[in-house]
Amino acid sequence: MADDTQPAARPGARRRAGRKPGLSRSRQAILDAARLAFAANGYAETSLRGIAREAGVDPSLVVHFFGSKAGVFSEVVEWPFDVEEHIPQVLAGGVDHVGERIARNFIGHWDRTEERSPIIALIEAAIADPTAAALLREFITVNFTLPLMEQIGADRPQLRAGLLASQVTGFGLGRYVLAFDGLADAPADELTAALGQILQHTCTGPL
Amino acid sequence: MADDTQPAARPGARRRAGRKPGLSRSRQAILDAARLAFAANGYAETSLRGIAREAGVDPSLVVHFFGSKAGVFSEVVEWPFDVEEHIPQVLAGGVDHVGERIARNFIGHWDRTEERSPIIALIEAAIADPTAAALLREFITVNFTLPLMEQIGADRPQLRAGLLASQVTGFGLGRYVLAFDGLADAPADELTAALGQILQHTCTGPL
Repeated sequence: MADDTQPAARPGARRRAGRKPGLSRSRQAILDAARLAFAANGYAETSLRGIAREAGVDPSLVVHFFGSKAGVFSEVVEWPFDVEEHIPQVLAGGVDHVGERIARNFIGHWDRTEERSPIIALIEAAIADPTAAALLREFITVNFTLPLMEQIGADRPQLRAGLLASQVTGFGLGRYVLAFDGLADAPADELTAALGQILQHTCTGPL
Repeated sequence: MADDTQPAARPGARRRAGRKPGLSRSRQAILDAARLAFAANGYAETSLRGIAREAGVDPSLVVHFFGSKAGVFSEVVEWPFDVEEHIPQVLAGGVDHVGERIARNFIGHWDRTEERSPIIALIEAAIADPTAAALLREFITVNFTLPLMEQIGADRPQLRAGLLASQVTGFGLGRYVLAFDGLADAPADELTAALGQILQHTCTGPL
């Protein structure tokens, strides 16, 4: 995260490399306000402006630190990658291979333990707690599955978005947590092809 | 459960309808022994004979009460339906509609809260605890997904079995727990058709 604003150095103040106390406090205030707002109002009903207001900072500072509401949420829940890059990435090769690209991205991220762990923790929390479930659901729906189906021009985009989200969730649990035979120990390339075919059907096949 | 054996009535003993203390104790001993054996050795490595030995009863009594190892396990974990009837049911109409039949059975059971709840509790436990995950995985694989793919004559039966198990798990979480839009509130018939198409691809389509 680049910090291009910096408080003026006070004469005699001890400089600590990489610490800008005022900005650091603002950043933390934003995260604290965001955590409360997401928990109280859900993902969809929380706005970047509302977070800024609660944190007592200008909205531009939220953008400066986190880019977007999705960025703030990703930081709060330690989401391991930039969810907003996902749609352009999976559609880059056209609609015909979107299933395979989703599978490749997904398995690529989840095969790294440090990226997988926070997402599994989120799913565990979501299973135990309806508020956490709503947050996770809205985050995935708003940022990935629904706009993807709309950009594809799929019929019944909501149904397909729900099926896609549930299949990817189930695959993640099946490969990494429940460790089903045939998933847990299969090479990433083989799984990418197989899961890709099924996700392709979900995106563009007859339902 | 029909009790066709019955201890001889002792003269003067107070009869309580439906209670046969000796058999009831044996039944409980079997369940206690089974619970320990499944937890210690997993589903695949536990035998009906071993459970009977640990419970100090004849194996025929285990069969009498529970039918099979799958029946004992179902009772221990409160699995809500007879898993051994599943394969004949979904293959009854031939391979061409197996996906739709799996979807119909699954949604039919899971749409009933009292049948869904113990399975969701098992999945929660499996996510939190690798031993519980192994039990659930083996129970599903041994009794349903793998023999199903073998009876279908599918290529790569293990991979397809794992994909099927993970999709059904994901769908269940997506509809009933995470409550994704497009799944949570859709009519059962619409979902049966849509999920059925995807599961059909998983069973018989190109991977």
